[in-house]
Amino acid sequence: MVYSDDGFGRYDELEAAIAAPGETWVHAAGIEPDELQALEDRLGIHPLAVDDVVDDQTRPKTAEYETHTFVLLKTVSLSQRDEVALQKEIQTHSVGFFIGEGWLVTMSTTDIDVVDQSAPQWARNERRVADRGTDFLAYRLMDAIVDDYFDVLDEIEDDIEAVEERVLDEPEPRILEDLNDVRRDLLAFRKVAWPAREAISSLSRGDIPEVADENEKYFRDVYDHLVQVVDLIETYRDLTGGSRDIYLNAVSQSTNDVMKTLTVVATIFIPLTFVAGIYGMNFAETPLAMPELYWTYGYPATMLGMGAVAGLMLVYFRRQDWI
Amino acid sequence: MVYSDDGFGRYDELEAAIAAPGETWVHAAGIEPDELQALEDRLGIHPLAVDDVVDDQTRPKTAEYETHTFVLLKTVSLSQRDEVALQKEIQTHSVGFFIGEGWLVTMSTTDIDVVDQSAPQWARNERRVADRGTDFLAYRLMDAIVDDYFDVLDEIEDDIEAVEERVLDEPEPRILEDLNDVRRDLLAFRKVAWPAREAISSLSRGDIPEVADENEKYFRDVYDHLVQVVDLIETYRDLTGGSRDIYLNAVSQSTNDVMKTLTVVATIFIPLTFVAGIYGMNFAETPLAMPELYWTYGYPATMLGMGAVAGLMLVYFRRQDWI
Amino acid sequence: MVYSDDGFGRYDELEAAIAAPGETWVHAAGIEPDELQALEDRLGIHPLAVDDVVDDQTRPKTAEYETHTFVLLKTVSLSQRDEVALQKEIQTHSVGFFIGEGWLVTMSTTDIDVVDQSAPQWARNERRVADRGTDFLAYRLMDAIVDDYFDVLDEIEDDIEAVEERVLDEPEPRILEDLNDVRRDLLAFRKVAWPAREAISSLSRGDIPEVADENEKYFRDVYDHLVQVVDLIETYRDLTGGSRDIYLNAVSQSTNDVMKTLTVVATIFIPLTFVAGIYGMNFAETPLAMPELYWTYGYPATMLGMGAVAGLMLVYFRRQDWI
Amino acid sequence: MVYSDDGFGRYDELEAAIAAPGETWVHAAGIEPDELQALEDRLGIHPLAVDDVVDDQTRPKTAEYETHTFVLLKTVSLSQRDEVALQKEIQTHSVGFFIGEGWLVTMSTTDIDVVDQSAPQWARNERRVADRGTDFLAYRLMDAIVDDYFDVLDEIEDDIEAVEERVLDEPEPRILEDLNDVRRDLLAFRKVAWPAREAISSLSRGDIPEVADENEKYFRDVYDHLVQVVDLIETYRDLTGGSRDIYLNAVSQSTNDVMKTLTVVATIFIPLTFVAGIYGMNFAETPLAMPELYWTYGYPATMLGMGAVAGLMLVYFRRQDWI
Amino acid sequence: MVYSDDGFGRYDELEAAIAAPGETWVHAAGIEPDELQALEDRLGIHPLAVDDVVDDQTRPKTAEYETHTFVLLKTVSLSQRDEVALQKEIQTHSVGFFIGEGWLVTMSTTDIDVVDQSAPQWARNERRVADRGTDFLAYRLMDAIVDDYFDVLDEIEDDIEAVEERVLDEPEPRILEDLNDVRRDLLAFRKVAWPAREAISSLSRGDIPEVADENEKYFRDVYDHLVQVVDLIETYRDLTGGSRDIYLNAVSQSTNDVMKTLTVVATIFIPLTFVAGIYGMNFAETPLAMPELYWTYGYPATMLGMGAVAGLMLVYFRRQDWI
Repeated sequence: MVYSDDGFGRYDELEAAIAAPGETWVHAAGIEPDELQALEDRLGIHPLAVDDVVDDQTRPKTAEYETHTFVLLKTVSLSQRDEVALQKEIQTHSVGFFIGEGWLVTMSTTDIDVVDQSAPQWARNERRVADRGTDFLAYRLMDAIVDDYFDVLDEIEDDIEAVEERVLDEPEPRILEDLNDVRRDLLAFRKVAWPAREAISSLSRGDIPEVADENEKYFRDVYDHLVQVVDLIETYRDLTGGSRDIYLNAVSQSTNDVMKTLTVVATIFIPLTFVAGIYGMNFAETPLAMPELYWTYGYPATMLGMGAVAGLMLVYFRRQDWI
Repeated sequence: MVYSDDGFGRYDELEAAIAAPGETWVHAAGIEPDELQALEDRLGIHPLAVDDVVDDQTRPKTAEYETHTFVLLKTVSLSQRDEVALQKEIQTHSVGFFIGEGWLVTMSTTDIDVVDQSAPQWARNERRVADRGTDFLAYRLMDAIVDDYFDVLDEIEDDIEAVEERVLDEPEPRILEDLNDVRRDLLAFRKVAWPAREAISSLSRGDIPEVADENEKYFRDVYDHLVQVVDLIETYRDLTGGSRDIYLNAVSQSTNDVMKTLTVVATIFIPLTFVAGIYGMNFAETPLAMPELYWTYGYPATMLGMGAVAGLMLVYFRRQDWI
Repeated sequence: MVYSDDGFGRYDELEAAIAAPGETWVHAAGIEPDELQALEDRLGIHPLAVDDVVDDQTRPKTAEYETHTFVLLKTVSLSQRDEVALQKEIQTHSVGFFIGEGWLVTMSTTDIDVVDQSAPQWARNERRVADRGTDFLAYRLMDAIVDDYFDVLDEIEDDIEAVEERVLDEPEPRILEDLNDVRRDLLAFRKVAWPAREAISSLSRGDIPEVADENEKYFRDVYDHLVQVVDLIETYRDLTGGSRDIYLNAVSQSTNDVMKTLTVVATIFIPLTFVAGIYGMNFAETPLAMPELYWTYGYPATMLGMGAVAGLMLVYFRRQDWI
Repeated sequence: MVYSDDGFGRYDELEAAIAAPGETWVHAAGIEPDELQALEDRLGIHPLAVDDVVDDQTRPKTAEYETHTFVLLKTVSLSQRDEVALQKEIQTHSVGFFIGEGWLVTMSTTDIDVVDQSAPQWARNERRVADRGTDFLAYRLMDAIVDDYFDVLDEIEDDIEAVEERVLDEPEPRILEDLNDVRRDLLAFRKVAWPAREAISSLSRGDIPEVADENEKYFRDVYDHLVQVVDLIETYRDLTGGSRDIYLNAVSQSTNDVMKTLTVVATIFIPLTFVAGIYGMNFAETPLAMPELYWTYGYPATMLGMGAVAGLMLVYFRRQDWI
Repeated sequence: MVYSDDGFGRYDELEAAIAAPGETWVHAAGIEPDELQALEDRLGIHPLAVDDVVDDQTRPKTAEYETHTFVLLKTVSLSQRDEVALQKEIQTHSVGFFIGEGWLVTMSTTDIDVVDQSAPQWARNERRVADRGTDFLAYRLMDAIVDDYFDVLDEIEDDIEAVEERVLDEPEPRILEDLNDVRRDLLAFRKVAWPAREAISSLSRGDIPEVADENEKYFRDVYDHLVQVVDLIETYRDLTGGSRDIYLNAVSQSTNDVMKTLTVVATIFIPLTFVAGIYGMNFAETPLAMPELYWTYGYPATMLGMGAVAGLMLVYFRRQDWI
């Protein structure tokens, strides 16, 4: 897709487009070898940089080349890991920006939503965008990518809140795994956002000749957003730590409650059972052996005694706040 | 609200006020589009900076523009999250300072108490404040904002102390949630105070042309306060960690106490019940089968034996410090 | 209290003292407004700096003014929080040093021991101290203040050791609170020592005109001491963490021991009680119903069997290291 | 092994090879004293640097010497610690690069796979590699070494995932040891990767005269890889922490489940046993002593009563979510 | 002890030795006041630096004086704290190096092994060492001191491994104290190694005039060793953390095992005892009251029923992996 002063066109116009006067934006989604060669020959785009775009492992960065500045950013999206609702996974796609004097080439291995949506928008008010230079074009795209980060963060926040509610409602071991998944997502996100912050920072500091002075403030704006993103990621990690503490405590607390129940029941009935056991002993009827067994009020007195013991214990447990 | 050499006035005097000689302070709470345009045209205030004021997510910062320096600070207040006493939430409101040569524009989306209270005060001793320049005016407002931080910190400290007392008095699971809420507040607060410190720091270092050399020490004072604020936040976070440890230990300790009670009662009565069970067995009267059942002193001896066993156990438990 | 080339004198000599030739040291404990004015007029001492001395919240710092350098340090002492031995609280008092050319003003809101003790000492060998300049005087006072830090640290170390011994001897919940108190003290101390280190550091780097080159090494010495103080504080915090681990483990261990006792007793007697229960059943005398009840050796065999079971269990528990 | 413009040769050609025109690469695996002397005399390689290669404890680093730049990297491999599958150990071998003008000496104490494999490859397309300089040769070797790091990391990731699965399937104490082993490996790896990053960083910054400007971007590429390696190591450490939490919780949870079972069974049967004990008491037949023993429906009523109690308790436990 | 170009001599030759041509090394172990005065007068050694050597609390550091550079290092050794094998304590002794042009004074309060051993060695090949300058002499001594650090670290590693084995073999509460002791040793060691690294770093950077350019690489070597030492200390601290986790888990695990035993035994026998209790009730012989007591197969059926219940429970526990 080529966007130039003359409007949009298909890829086969590349040569012409670059040669055309004015600002030119070329977006290449899915690159083929021979086209690559053309880009390298024509615009001096280094194969190592293209490798960085193709290799999904590369971290966002800014690198200066002779004819242009190369910026690598990553789009981030959350995809369902499987059917179960919470297991999401961070998906990243590299987008390479080659910002030259009067031209901008963006490159990706797949279709990127924010790029595809921007093109038609700009087609409508062509002149206005083009007049501000290809660095402004690059800013608009980067800004759209970084804005998407906030959507992903919102989604993660919703997940954390969902987990937090479950922690309070029905603590179950799965929660720890879910929290771990969220932490993993945040780690993966940070791995993208942290270097992106550095990459944009160098665009906003006036070191890059391809970025016009009056456009630097826009990159500073993107930089500020990325600082916020990194901040939020740290805050969210801290929050997952808090949820974990609450969950782990819920388990301890549950053990504690279970123990209390057992202790109350056992402590009341074990002594009483012992007393019943005493009167169940088969001692022969001698004067010293349990004469109360033969008294008229022996049984009621025993029962009352047992009841009194149980009552006292209940009072004690109540005081201990165990029941 | 416009405050100039000529005193206070309403907004429709903006044009005149700015044009008026001497120092001019304009405070705009709730900005409307057309007024915005006027500000931009007249004073060179950049729309991106105004966006920063309007967007509640932006972090405090200092940015230099051609005609002025822009400083974004945030007021902080604690609001009740709901009816329950402890659930408070940090509320922040952005206040933008545009410090130009001879003019100061402050901007916010809502009415800010410290600003509203400052204005009448200054109206009374107009000349004295105005003579020291708009940077001094800005300092006074910023200082008032930062002073409010300490009030909020005091409130948070009270909350922590309230939680600490409850930890010692009656440990209950809600405490962890309350501590988590306090930590959350501290995190949110730090997100405001940390960048604010950086923002003020650049005002106090002499880099900003709009700040007169003799006024820098005032900003250094504000900076010192913010360093203290950040320090206190860290200290308070550490304290919540200590409270959490004490609470978690209280749960362990409670489980331990419950267990001790159960163990003492069960360990004493289970063996005795066994003995009673022995004498409850229905062995036929043979010479080898429990002759003590038929002895005169069998029963009292058995009971004394049981009492002795129980006594020994009690001594043992006492030594173990379990009762 | 005024100490000048002419010896010591009372405050009313201030004007004369400052005017007197040679080095002059003025110590003001408890400042009154009109005296303040005199200081400001005569020596150019800024009200903001005086505020820093009066406000107990200000952190130690070094600030340069036109006529002098202002250094704020804090004395630290431990006071009993209440009757209970361990609850100590860090008490700090600000001491302000205004080091000018040929004069030194120290200021505090209360009497400071180290200052009061230094004066008479110096009075004795006046000439020698005075000859080395007011910066050397300031060093002597600062060194005395920092030396006191080590006494406080020694006291804190004693407290930690006392707690550690109690952790091993008789673990009780109060220990966690005591450890928390110590940590709180260390936090408060660090809040004093850390900025003090920075403040002295700038005195020792040769940036301050009021400090003679040949005296810088003395401030470097104080700086080294403060580095040690900060180091020790960190080490002590780490040690309190270790004590807390040992205590928390003592609780777990105690629960474990309690459980073992219960388990050993219950596991031995519950099965035996069941056996006794069996022979206590009232089955009618049929050929298949417990013929052993009517055998001569039935009872002894049963008892031996029970003893054997109990013995085997004891062996098992011994092997498990539970008894 | 000598690789020069004239192709490969054996070591005895060293003198000739170095003297030969064009680029020369000498790889020495296992160094002998007299050869060392030759290297030192001929190329100015310092004995201290050779010591660094021989001593396995030395950390990766870059050092500049008069005639060359010395870079020490380490190959990393995982070896089985013993028969048991998971106990792997990080093995490192030092590889020294001496990059001079027109010559490259690599040195190691053992045969290094990546070096041995590279040589024949390059032999095939000799000219092409040699033309780009010995610094490019060094890059190719370093890149191969660092690429191996990712294989090791993949292996470690597999190990972590294997442990994670076991944590969820069958938590057993060995898991903590295995996690500790993985952490130990990661610590050892980080000790290699962190300084290697710094070492390569100085090659890519243009400070080293032996690295041609046009080849710097290759070293920057290696640097980026090492940044990723360090990042992954940190992420993996964080993940092992998460697994440990899940495991420790599994133990707590298991204790909790065991307790619930005990509590449910004991709480139901202990009161019932008490009731049975009551009716087993041998009270003489008096009007007040258990008349229900002699009623026709006494027994069924008692049994029904017991069943009702048990049923109610089951309902309660069900509500508590214990069964 | 004086070592000069003319060989070794006793202290009374100090004056002559310093005056003698060529390199001079003076080692003073245990300094006396009048000798001190001589050193100060003759070589310009500052009393503050001597104080640093005498005061055992001073941290390693490098300080430049007019006539020489002062370096303070510390020897480290482990001494048995008491009879019990593991309780070792870090012992440190200060060694001061005063490196001047053509002379080296080392100073310590006690005899230092590495110094005492070096002297005779050098006496043998005098010329060779002396020719390389007193800075090389200093390097040799510092290197010997730092090499000793590794011996101490090896000893600490052995201790950690001994503890680790005990953690796995027989977990007992003392282990936590031992781990705490090791951590304490590591903290004390780090307090020596960290500043030593900084001190040596400044020797290796070419800032110090007394260190010849060609000898700087030797100090860089010492610096590398110290970096390793600090690294190992951190790694060992991490390992003690791992051991603590394993130990704490062993306690939880043990509680868990104890609970399982209790639960299995109690859960099997409590219901059975209840059944036995039922048949022990003294209900009068009515048609509805336990007719099975009078059936021929009543007893065997009951026993079989009990056995079946016990068997089912055992199967259940087996499935739960509790037995």
